[in-house]
Amino acid sequence: MELWFTEKQTPVFGITAKIRETLVREQTDFQDLAIIDTEEFGRMLVLDDMVMTTVKDEFVYHEMVAHPALFTHPDPKHVLVVGGGDGGVIREIMKHPKVEKAVLVDIDGKVIEYSKKYLPEIASELDNPRVEVQVNDGYMHIIESKNKYDVIMVDSTEPVGPAAPLFERGFYQGIYEALKDDGIFVAQTDNPWFKADLIRNVNKDVKEIFPVVRVYTANIPTYPSGLWTFTMGSKIHDPLQVDETQIPEIDTKYYSPRLHKAAFVLPKFVEDLVK
Amino acid sequence: MELWFTEKQTPVFGITAKIRETLVREQTDFQDLAIIDTEEFGRMLVLDDMVMTTVKDEFVYHEMVAHPALFTHPDPKHVLVVGGGDGGVIREIMKHPKVEKAVLVDIDGKVIEYSKKYLPEIASELDNPRVEVQVNDGYMHIIESKNKYDVIMVDSTEPVGPAAPLFERGFYQGIYEALKDDGIFVAQTDNPWFKADLIRNVNKDVKEIFPVVRVYTANIPTYPSGLWTFTMGSKIHDPLQVDETQIPEIDTKYYSPRLHKAAFVLPKFVEDLVK
Repeated sequence: MELWFTEKQTPVFGITAKIRETLVREQTDFQDLAIIDTEEFGRMLVLDDMVMTTVKDEFVYHEMVAHPALFTHPDPKHVLVVGGGDGGVIREIMKHPKVEKAVLVDIDGKVIEYSKKYLPEIASELDNPRVEVQVNDGYMHIIESKNKYDVIMVDSTEPVGPAAPLFERGFYQGIYEALKDDGIFVAQTDNPWFKADLIRNVNKDVKEIFPVVRVYTANIPTYPSGLWTFTMGSKIHDPLQVDETQIPEIDTKYYSPRLHKAAFVLPKFVEDLVK
Repeated sequence: MELWFTEKQTPVFGITAKIRETLVREQTDFQDLAIIDTEEFGRMLVLDDMVMTTVKDEFVYHEMVAHPALFTHPDPKHVLVVGGGDGGVIREIMKHPKVEKAVLVDIDGKVIEYSKKYLPEIASELDNPRVEVQVNDGYMHIIESKNKYDVIMVDSTEPVGPAAPLFERGFYQGIYEALKDDGIFVAQTDNPWFKADLIRNVNKDVKEIFPVVRVYTANIPTYPSGLWTFTMGSKIHDPLQVDETQIPEIDTKYYSPRLHKAAFVLPKFVEDLVK
């Protein structure tokens, strides 16, 4: 018997992966959580039927959430991750010695618990003493934080279910206030092939709040279209003004100092979305 | 009844697309040819069960085969396309007024015939008077051509079936001899996630023949992994030495003067493949 997991990335298109076994399948308080072992991509975290991360390609997403912002801010001491309970973004943040403390706020403790158990290579730094893990509503954490963080990273699911409020203008305003005077935030903002309107709307909202707004992309095979966008909003520091020759080589597989600015050069149809 | 087309991009992973109808299904002298109408990507050309091009995302591949080389060569008068019977690369080449003649050599006349009939937006320039279409063996055409072309583009299928010889060292040697003294060639060279060895081997072969070898990428949603590589071999001209400010804005949706050099900045794991 062959078992295949199929994600409908749109109602009429999807990816399909042969699986060895299902390790977890549970309805948590917030979402349908599954961890399956696929032959092509290894273990895969699936929330509400959407691929969140896989052992084979997770490095792209996690590196590209963390490093562009951390190598743009000159002194990122205090970092917040909203969502990201699998721990992948935290693992990348911990490669930066300047970071004194990283707070992770995920609404679903089950994601953290099962990631530690079944995705140990991704969750490897969640117990680092520089990391504080809170099982809590990230939206509320943002609203209650003022002038507190150097960098905020939004590692959310798609804008359906528990993550929907994380794509609203009010949330970006809250992030602005939660950041210090020279703070930077970055959020995953889906793909330009199937979600062009989302990218356009987020860009418009963020531009009304932050003086510096930049969009960059990365290739993630298991995400819809394979092309993912990230939106960065900054109070002062501009990722395109960074001196790439001063970025140190760290242990990465996707991000590099050479890619720091190149990742911001968009295909023309994406450029047109965020003009 | 719902009909879905599934391409196994590897034995254990694939994409699946809901289809409206099958327009053509025919075993030609060389391959299994199908044109299907999909809901997400529109009409799709499928050869030997592999997606070749779709109306929705074809612009990426065709622009990125044609423009980087044509905007690197200072005077591309004579251009050869090996394969590419759908006409998409030819359509992009025709956007360059410097090109006096483009020769298309595809081994399978049925691809040309059905593309003209069912993919008219892609095949639109095949009857341009500056274009010469030959139904012939591209490998033989290369071997028989000496010091003839300014730019050669290899728009082949995967290295199985009729296209297998187009990935051999002898073919690149033939291309070198078919090019004029300052000629450039570019070939599609598959994806780094599932075909790392192919990219590594092609790169090694081409480096033994051409003094300037560069690899660039583009995002193509319907191709395996969504990240496609292109390998460029050049006798003199270097795409990274081009003055981007001198590249004119032409009618494109993916390529832009700003992307000309950025496309060559590779993710670290791809960079490592072609070191």
